[in-house]
Amino acid sequence: MREVGIGIAGFGTVGGGVISILRSHAREIEARLGARIVVRRVAVRDPEKERMVDLDRSLLTTRYQDLVADPTVQVVVELVGGTTEARSLVLAALAAGKHVVTANKALLAFHGEEIFRLAEEKGVDVYYEGAVAGGVPVIRTLREALASDRIQAIHGIVNGTTNYILTSMAEKGEPLATALAEAQRLGYAEADPTLDVSGGDAAQKLCLLAQLAFGARVAPQDVLTEGIMGLLPEDFAWAKEFGYALKLLAVARRSGPNGGDAGGLIEARVHPAFIPRDSMLAGVRGAMNAVLLHSEALGPTLLFGQGAGAMPTGSAVVADIIDLSRNLLSGSPGRVPLPPATSTVRLRSHAEIRTAYYLCFSVKDTPGVLARIAATLAGRGISIAAVQQREHEEEGAPVALVIVTHQAREADLKAAIREIDAYETTAAPTRLIRIEQV
Amino acid sequence: MREVGIGIAGFGTVGGGVISILRSHAREIEARLGARIVVRRVAVRDPEKERMVDLDRSLLTTRYQDLVADPTVQVVVELVGGTTEARSLVLAALAAGKHVVTANKALLAFHGEEIFRLAEEKGVDVYYEGAVAGGVPVIRTLREALASDRIQAIHGIVNGTTNYILTSMAEKGEPLATALAEAQRLGYAEADPTLDVSGGDAAQKLCLLAQLAFGARVAPQDVLTEGIMGLLPEDFAWAKEFGYALKLLAVARRSGPNGGDAGGLIEARVHPAFIPRDSMLAGVRGAMNAVLLHSEALGPTLLFGQGAGAMPTGSAVVADIIDLSRNLLSGSPGRVPLPPATSTVRLRSHAEIRTAYYLCFSVKDTPGVLARIAATLAGRGISIAAVQQREHEEEGAPVALVIVTHQAREADLKAAIREIDAYETTAAPTRLIRIEQV
Repeated sequence: MREVGIGIAGFGTVGGGVISILRSHAREIEARLGARIVVRRVAVRDPEKERMVDLDRSLLTTRYQDLVADPTVQVVVELVGGTTEARSLVLAALAAGKHVVTANKALLAFHGEEIFRLAEEKGVDVYYEGAVAGGVPVIRTLREALASDRIQAIHGIVNGTTNYILTSMAEKGEPLATALAEAQRLGYAEADPTLDVSGGDAAQKLCLLAQLAFGARVAPQDVLTEGIMGLLPEDFAWAKEFGYALKLLAVARRSGPNGGDAGGLIEARVHPAFIPRDSMLAGVRGAMNAVLLHSEALGPTLLFGQGAGAMPTGSAVVADIIDLSRNLLSGSPGRVPLPPATSTVRLRSHAEIRTAYYLCFSVKDTPGVLARIAATLAGRGISIAAVQQREHEEEGAPVALVIVTHQAREADLKAAIREIDAYETTAAPTRLIRIEQV
Repeated sequence: MREVGIGIAGFGTVGGGVISILRSHAREIEARLGARIVVRRVAVRDPEKERMVDLDRSLLTTRYQDLVADPTVQVVVELVGGTTEARSLVLAALAAGKHVVTANKALLAFHGEEIFRLAEEKGVDVYYEGAVAGGVPVIRTLREALASDRIQAIHGIVNGTTNYILTSMAEKGEPLATALAEAQRLGYAEADPTLDVSGGDAAQKLCLLAQLAFGARVAPQDVLTEGIMGLLPEDFAWAKEFGYALKLLAVARRSGPNGGDAGGLIEARVHPAFIPRDSMLAGVRGAMNAVLLHSEALGPTLLFGQGAGAMPTGSAVVADIIDLSRNLLSGSPGRVPLPPATSTVRLRSHAEIRTAYYLCFSVKDTPGVLARIAATLAGRGISIAAVQQREHEEEGAPVALVIVTHQAREADLKAAIREIDAYETTAAPTRLIRIEQV
């Protein structure tokens, strides 16, 4: 039977998942592929460390170069993480004419251009299904299934940690700190959860999706990014009252008038958003992930599943290894090229982005406050869709005034809020959450 | 630029969609494929008929053989429908060494074995993404993305017509006849809706899914199939009361104890089912389709989108044409073989299938009725999870008694119902709906 030799760098959670799937599903894989996938080398930092999965010690090495130098390794699987060592390893593997599978979103978000350019030069493939939404086949769908279509918008719940926290807040009415602590206790959030709760992780994934969908070169630091740390239990109560769910969304879309294409402008943003309660995305609970694609011919397509973990991500990595093996065995590497980066696609400036907003003002309960706020909004061309005011709990305490706006320009909205926050009748900075009709 | 020549048989709704997508997205397709897809011949019944899409009349022919005989046609796209002409055409095309794309579920459900065997013999490919759930990439996901995984169960909403009708009944409290008439008026249901409302269409699609997921040869007539025509508005009211949604589900699963694998037994069934209201499938509204896959490594994966229509199905067909073109251009046809049919996989007999049930008894309101029914169920080993009885509306009229059971064997359940229906205290045949925890 024919063989495809792979080398794996990194033997942590996902690496263990990959090896365990390759082993336990070997028979199915051989039947489907007509060839055997053989692990030739595994590079690790500490060869003495106890592992969840047994492995022949003679395969272990501490030098990544051993994978690159081994002529029997055709595919290098990068599971090291980070962007320094991983970048050197991937570039060295590509330079040596080896194919690469990686689940490293940060690496591709920050160094994708360099990596994809070298891969193209060398006529080898880079596959990365595991980098976004774990085992959910979103990369494959964008690269292949929608090859004939034109994507209009992507709305994703691509960070399981924050979705777990927001689900707890919505369903148990918990404050964020409680929900976060519980997520940490259960292993859904890391000890330092910054990358997740800041929206940074979702922004990196969004860059990969925007590249595939729009041929756009977007860097994580250029994505409008707001995290979840400012959310309060009362936001969820208001969401319910207005018929919304509250989710951390990653959004990339063509950014013309009415969402159409306007000279290659796109927008890319990650932020908490109110979405209609009957939207499929509103049903995505706990640590699950989902990506909703809107395309010209297909209309809406939703892909949903587990976004992380040894087996889901390991499964995506193994599916990539199989796909690459098919290319190798049939002599067709480069079979599905990345969509050409379209130099004419530009990112709309944050100031120009238009969405509807939920605004929560904390105001002193004196006559004329609502009138003044409404006038300020109107002065900036911001039109009001709904207003609600809660009874104050004690005499003289500030009251919450909630205004839902129609679509407004980000710069106008921010300017209006700056103005309103300077009023002496404003008791605390105004809070905002964007509203997405998905 | 290189070219791939295709011939299209059938120029109805989907054919028009295919040609319109090939034309309007030609630039994107060329950029992604590095080749041009050229329509060489289009076979139609009536060349004089007015079409939605303009086409050079010199391409038209009334003879399918012209597509097969044309040496410049490398891929035959079968959009004729039915199983007679379509079968002859597909077999002739394969015999001539041409690749085939089809969206014809009936053809593959009834003649798949013959077709796939000939394709394998001839070393050519048959692609059929459009045959199940329109543009939702479920075939591709089963064939490729989950190649490394072991599927445990499939739960699908794969018939848009019935899902449209059930959504109307659930949301507007309409009787079935009203919802069906409205679906017909809006074009979601055909004048003769039998194939859809009987569950037959869903059963055909389920056969294709079961083959990919389990390597099972299942014929539509062997699928336990119940349609929606017996459903009443009160079923939806009860569903709500018990926390369920009511959907027409297509289910295929490994059928061991606790859903595990028991010597290659699978079950395949299509029937109305109560599913938990917070399930992702419960959120699938209107004419939308969704397929939920449970697999060993990935856990749950849901794919959702438009199940029918010129553009969604056309888009799936074009994605298949592109995929095949990639194989052709890189000289790698047969790149993704169908999973080998596993002769050891057998279908569990309907009598042995185990599910939980909702039972709606119509009984005379006399003492001892509930006790007798409960005793009959217990005598068959059927255990009761919940009981509810509605107040009767007028003195002496029968009352509705609803019993939810734990998992029970189909044969035992049916026997118990036969017994109960023979009681003089039973006013009308007992109605049942299965309950699926998805």
